Amino acid sequence: MKDLASRTRTSARSLAAAEGGQRTQALEELIRLLTANEKRILEANKKDVAEAARTGLDAPLLARLKLSQAKLDGLRDGLRQLIEQGDPVGRPLRKTLLDDGLTLTQVTSPLGVLLIIFESRPDAVIQIGGLAIRTGNGLILKGGKEALHSNAILTDCIRSALEKAGLSPDAVNGVVQREAVHALLQCDEDIDLVIPRGSASLVRSIQSSSRIPVMGHADGICHVFFDKHADPAMAERIIVDSKCDYPAACNAAESLLVHRDFLPHIRRIGETLTANGVTLRAGSQASEHLTQCEPAGEEDGAVEYGNLTLSIRAVSNLNEAIDRIHQHGSGHTESIVTDCDSTAAAFLARVDSASVFHNASTRFADGYRYGLGAEVGISTGRIHARGPVGSEGLLTTRWLLRGSGDTVSTYSGANARSFIHTRLPLD
Amino acid sequence: MKDLASRTRTSARSLAAAEGGQRTQALEELIRLLTANEKRILEANKKDVAEAARTGLDAPLLARLKLSQAKLDGLRDGLRQLIEQGDPVGRPLRKTLLDDGLTLTQVTSPLGVLLIIFESRPDAVIQIGGLAIRTGNGLILKGGKEALHSNAILTDCIRSALEKAGLSPDAVNGVVQREAVHALLQCDEDIDLVIPRGSASLVRSIQSSSRIPVMGHADGICHVFFDKHADPAMAERIIVDSKCDYPAACNAAESLLVHRDFLPHIRRIGETLTANGVTLRAGSQASEHLTQCEPAGEEDGAVEYGNLTLSIRAVSNLNEAIDRIHQHGSGHTESIVTDCDSTAAAFLARVDSASVFHNASTRFADGYRYGLGAEVGISTGRIHARGPVGSEGLLTTRWLLRGSGDTVSTYSGANARSFIHTRLPLD
Repeated sequence: MKDLASRTRTSARSLAAAEGGQRTQALEELIRLLTANEKRILEANKKDVAEAARTGLDAPLLARLKLSQAKLDGLRDGLRQLIEQGDPVGRPLRKTLLDDGLTLTQVTSPLGVLLIIFESRPDAVIQIGGLAIRTGNGLILKGGKEALHSNAILTDCIRSALEKAGLSPDAVNGVVQREAVHALLQCDEDIDLVIPRGSASLVRSIQSSSRIPVMGHADGICHVFFDKHADPAMAERIIVDSKCDYPAACNAAESLLVHRDFLPHIRRIGETLTANGVTLRAGSQASEHLTQCEPAGEEDGAVEYGNLTLSIRAVSNLNEAIDRIHQHGSGHTESIVTDCDSTAAAFLARVDSASVFHNASTRFADGYRYGLGAEVGISTGRIHARGPVGSEGLLTTRWLLRGSGDTVSTYSGANARSFIHTRLPLD
Repeated sequence: MKDLASRTRTSARSLAAAEGGQRTQALEELIRLLTANEKRILEANKKDVAEAARTGLDAPLLARLKLSQAKLDGLRDGLRQLIEQGDPVGRPLRKTLLDDGLTLTQVTSPLGVLLIIFESRPDAVIQIGGLAIRTGNGLILKGGKEALHSNAILTDCIRSALEKAGLSPDAVNGVVQREAVHALLQCDEDIDLVIPRGSASLVRSIQSSSRIPVMGHADGICHVFFDKHADPAMAERIIVDSKCDYPAACNAAESLLVHRDFLPHIRRIGETLTANGVTLRAGSQASEHLTQCEPAGEEDGAVEYGNLTLSIRAVSNLNEAIDRIHQHGSGHTESIVTDCDSTAAAFLARVDSASVFHNASTRFADGYRYGLGAEVGISTGRIHARGPVGSEGLLTTRWLLRGSGDTVSTYSGANARSFIHTRLPLD
């Protein structure tokens, strides 16, 4: 694995140093190869799906495992969007004239080598592979064994696409063995970022067993807060969407906080949630206003159910709502429903989460909905990218200084020159 | 320590949520307090210096420990610059209209709580304390015991300044005990970033003993490469500055690579270096062209000497120079000396270090010289900030979505609406 990581590093450096046009060509080749190999891809996927069905994989995982012509169309569309976005590598972000003939430019650069650990969804190979090529990053893909055949053929397509564009195929590598993960997590010299996409326990175990930075989120414990000035119909619409649209998603709401003055309105909203199959776990104050609910335990309000369960608690005011969010939330996404502008402004200013919403469903926290194009995941970390992460999160910067024989001793001592430090326009 | 970290977190949240004007006021109060307490500060510092001299602290560390009226003037100037820079918190970076009445804004936000571990230099308390206030971050300062009295009074000034501005003094805390570091490094719930400023071994031991992200650099193994098209006089000027201006600095050159066609020129350059007190450790090919040198061992070319020692090696071409830099460098700063534009362009495009220079001394890699104002350190990591880090490296972002009752179910199914995704001007 150490060899594999080091080989990926070397190839990633040549991918990064190549002309942007070559990386674009690789993306174009990949679109062509996905079309040319469509039949083989779907057959390989059928094998995986049949095997997974036999071993009793969960229905949602099975659905994510399954490829279709429509999914392949979507993947090709995504690659076309990446091509249209243009080359994000080497873009100047800041240019400063330090002194005559001494110019500093901060430019975007690939991060280096990414390790992605994911389950079930073979389409992630193409989405993340495409993003890696676009951003000039090397990539090691560790998929689940349930997608073995699908992942293998899709990874082959990416490697062939790189080769056809005159780039080293070793910039993208697939890894199959489960034991490989532990070894790869030790390769902090050659892997710059780990992106785990899977269960909270997977993410936490990776975070605690590697010196390599980890981007992503363990939990998505998202809150909706009904302020006393919430419009009841809007409140109902938002909590139903936040909870029921896709309960297994990380941006689904797990916890509803209700201003005590709004409590009289929650009976009807609770009935609608129940009608949508939601189990309500209510605190004592809230439960008095609900037709049907279970009593909330200590853990409710601080767990990601990942299903149609929702915790409901009354709070006395905005401060208590924000304190609860900071204490029990995971810093993912929180939304306030209110018609009061100043309360909304205070919520948006003070809630310390990656995404903070006013009068909108928590489910909007998503790279596609945000208009970022492809998404590698959602980060609840504060270092590097935060929230939905698109190609910008896979870039770092370098500082390029162009001089004419300059020395720093010129700027100290008796006849010291002064720096100019003029910001120059980006070209 | 867990309590201290959690108290800092709470106070940091209120510092972050305060109006920018209040943070500015705290900086103004700090300038006043530094003046009002100047005598007491210099007396406390005298105690530290006397004690350190008695225990035989190194001369360079002793120089860094010592405060003077001039140093205090410099600190007040730095604080004034921070005030002039304006409030960096809550600045919009990107604004997107997702749909009618649904606007997404990405804004800058404080990182949260910073832990700074530093030695000797008590002025760092004010520099970093000022940056923390400016960026709305909580701060735990762990200084060395040699600066005990100086750090204590300066930290008190910061806490009083916060209080006078109506902010919680607990946003900034000083810690004295050595054992505290280990305990603080376990507080990954309440500390978001560790910035160690000290020896490479200190940095490495922190990196391997904490789940908290660490910003900084262990080694500064910087290279200068003399291309075959280098101007000999410029080459000499740049290597003398890179090596001799401040040999203990992380941005001083440790390793000189020389294109074999340029070797005939290094006799004179070597003599100048020797006259400046530099010990040359040369590879066999290079040594044939030098008047005075020691033979390079295996480790030379891959260590940070931190003193007036320089490794010299011949290389056959640009590729070999870049490969050596990638293999033995620390990704800090590298400089090429050449009159050939295409070789310079290739070096700048391909060298994977935080700072990459053409015809300039490696010593320019510094936040002040880059025009960033205050600097918290230089990062060789690729995640988050890279290179010299000013206030931008102490900020993250949040995504604020303002809607009017929007749900994602509107954008799927039979009558799905489409997103607009129009980029809006920043106001």
